[in-house]
Amino acid sequence: MSSPRSTSTKSTKHTDTTDSTDSTDEASRHPVSRRRLVGTAGAAGAAGLLAGGASGAVAAEALRDEAPTPLTSIGANGVPFHGRHQAGITTPLQAAGHFAAFDLAPGAGRAQAAALLKRWSDTARELSEGRAAADATGSARDAGPAGLTVTFGFGRTFFDRTGLADRRPAGLEPLPAFSADALDARRSDGDLWLQIGADDALVAFGALRTLQRRAGDAAVLRWQMSGFNRTPGATDRPRSARNLMGQVDGTNNPKPEDPDFAGHVFVPASGGSPTGGGGEDAPEWLAGGSYAVFRRIRMLLDAWDHLSLERQERVIGRRKSDGAPLSGGEETTPVDMNKQLADGSLAIPGDAHVRVAAPESNGGATMLRRSFSYHDGYLDTRDGPVPDAGLLFVAWQADPLKGFVPVQRKLDRGDGLSRFLRHESSGLFAVPGGAAAGEYVGQRLLEG
Amino acid sequence: MSSPRSTSTKSTKHTDTTDSTDSTDEASRHPVSRRRLVGTAGAAGAAGLLAGGASGAVAAEALRDEAPTPLTSIGANGVPFHGRHQAGITTPLQAAGHFAAFDLAPGAGRAQAAALLKRWSDTARELSEGRAAADATGSARDAGPAGLTVTFGFGRTFFDRTGLADRRPAGLEPLPAFSADALDARRSDGDLWLQIGADDALVAFGALRTLQRRAGDAAVLRWQMSGFNRTPGATDRPRSARNLMGQVDGTNNPKPEDPDFAGHVFVPASGGSPTGGGGEDAPEWLAGGSYAVFRRIRMLLDAWDHLSLERQERVIGRRKSDGAPLSGGEETTPVDMNKQLADGSLAIPGDAHVRVAAPESNGGATMLRRSFSYHDGYLDTRDGPVPDAGLLFVAWQADPLKGFVPVQRKLDRGDGLSRFLRHESSGLFAVPGGAAAGEYVGQRLLEG
Repeated sequence: MSSPRSTSTKSTKHTDTTDSTDSTDEASRHPVSRRRLVGTAGAAGAAGLLAGGASGAVAAEALRDEAPTPLTSIGANGVPFHGRHQAGITTPLQAAGHFAAFDLAPGAGRAQAAALLKRWSDTARELSEGRAAADATGSARDAGPAGLTVTFGFGRTFFDRTGLADRRPAGLEPLPAFSADALDARRSDGDLWLQIGADDALVAFGALRTLQRRAGDAAVLRWQMSGFNRTPGATDRPRSARNLMGQVDGTNNPKPEDPDFAGHVFVPASGGSPTGGGGEDAPEWLAGGSYAVFRRIRMLLDAWDHLSLERQERVIGRRKSDGAPLSGGEETTPVDMNKQLADGSLAIPGDAHVRVAAPESNGGATMLRRSFSYHDGYLDTRDGPVPDAGLLFVAWQADPLKGFVPVQRKLDRGDGLSRFLRHESSGLFAVPGGAAAGEYVGQRLLEG
Repeated sequence: MSSPRSTSTKSTKHTDTTDSTDSTDEASRHPVSRRRLVGTAGAAGAAGLLAGGASGAVAAEALRDEAPTPLTSIGANGVPFHGRHQAGITTPLQAAGHFAAFDLAPGAGRAQAAALLKRWSDTARELSEGRAAADATGSARDAGPAGLTVTFGFGRTFFDRTGLADRRPAGLEPLPAFSADALDARRSDGDLWLQIGADDALVAFGALRTLQRRAGDAAVLRWQMSGFNRTPGATDRPRSARNLMGQVDGTNNPKPEDPDFAGHVFVPASGGSPTGGGGEDAPEWLAGGSYAVFRRIRMLLDAWDHLSLERQERVIGRRKSDGAPLSGGEETTPVDMNKQLADGSLAIPGDAHVRVAAPESNGGATMLRRSFSYHDGYLDTRDGPVPDAGLLFVAWQADPLKGFVPVQRKLDRGDGLSRFLRHESSGLFAVPGGAAAGEYVGQRLLEG
């Protein structure tokens, strides 16, 4: 689907931008409170349904431009589109997700990209407020926003094609090649990247279709993948999730209440070098933003499932039942890397995933993983059908060179788990900060 | 993936069977009450969590063979495996679904099939009771049964391969060819058919993987597809669902409270001819069972979305916003086929889907549709990428010749909607009645 492109430096009108209050940060510290528990209400009660604190408020009138539908808790949950950071980074994991990359169409440049980001931002805001009229398919009707988030990112190629190569941040340097990579270029990279998440699959599908249609003539779909997580209410484990290997995933993620959380995940406002990577020399337009590393990681589930439970747990370094480290304790107990068993061997084996991936093994390298599982049917192999399933891995960090890159370098060489994984596609995207009211995502880059 | 097979008439031991009470029927009349709203409870409360009425009770001890996990409403919902009918027919639509067909392995015959159905029934019962130890993958852990159902069916070829051709019911005569069919044989038919549904995607995936692994050497996967519906709690519309065209679907389904509901959907116990179709001459082993017609129906969504709202509504015969018929009223108002507009034209056009599909247009032909939407990414076409998405259509009826066949014959010729649909795969399966306690699904056929 890739095609030759021309670039343009034509600019749309310039607008001053102002950050809104940091509502996303606030909400992320109270993930449970973002799932607003609203009882079923009749038509007359709909207007007042979504009154909430600063973190979760959705304009009540958003729900009145259609015949009001009584909404229940999962459907009524609205995640604010505006904020210092884009939604979908610290938002609690949603049940359904889509990832899509678009390339700017031949002839489209900066002006068309700016108009596209404005259309997409308007659409994302309306959909995340549950405005049924914004859904071009109708599949989202009756359900409310259902926790919908849309997150936009720019790939390395975007900057050439919009004549903004001089503003491309250093953090978008291509990821190094890893020995375990088996990347499909057609399903990797892209000028523009969308992450869509919602707690209802029809809402998520409607958002994907609507955003794709609103791309109009400006951009062409390059690749698209779909994933899933636990349905909210199916478990009360708030933070960790099972992956398709059956392991608890995400335990060691940085927590919003950690003092250095924002420093690990978000690009700071200070500095202001136009092309800096992450950290203090990041460009101003990326302030409050982040870098997303996206990887389609197929799991060799047949091989994995043939391991005994004990061997699976030693590959990971954690108990399967509850995620507790093999060094003892419960899921959230810090891993004791030096703990020895009675025979003098290490409780956490030398090649255990949890050891090789740990920040203390990687000079403090930290990223926020927020992945979806995927299952795209079966692949026919000589050994019969094997599931085409695994993880749509998403990692968020202020600087890829201090997050994904050093960790994956280490995993690539020494991780016992890597024998059961295939990295099949890859993307690295600069994700601007959230749009303030009246602003669109990326405006500070495209009109700055 | 198909391969030559031998057949065997070797039989395993014969067991007398006794129907349990008709708990599924009872529950289906109160769909809302089956979603058991159970508050979060600590470990000590787990034993008493699932006490319920006859229709939804799950043995409380099922949840105690692992460290107890507090369950919330969606996760704790257990659908009984045993009953007069198999679960998954009148069960409220679930958020995640899988369909899979298996062929008996070369050399496997009646004995292997009987052992397989026993293994599968045991697994399905344990998983639907939320027994974490029964889940071979671990992905279902922490979530409870989450409304899991597994439904088993036999394809036409099953009877030859098990030496039971003389017991094949007349209802399994191949479906007629329809002009709009573009069927892929590799994704059609099959000796054995599984329908898996759950309100959590990881629970559904775990069930699929576990059942496939328990197939052992007896059967080989032939095809597998995945689908989805609304998340429970995302809307409070209890009965109808949106499809990917955005239309309300299922409004005209027979209702469990209709006096002739069971007669339309389930094979009656009377009669007892060994090879009868549906109705009164059905074989005794199929009593309480049903016939499932499965079709993968791709929607030409780009063409559909280019229609104006008014044209979409005239193709269907219902308003998109709320599903009300164009002849007036609300969603559940009976369609007035003769209603004329001011200009004398029919309010429901002659080729409107709702007219052509209506029982009154087909000699009373009625089926219970219980479909899932699917979205398998995109197809590359000359016009660019188009969504590979649509409906995994499932219709349940006592006799295909009085349900799907006459309706589809009519739709195939005269339905305005058929221009936007492609039937890409097809299967017809005889679905035995539910297993009584101590019995496995299909035992009355395989050991009768």
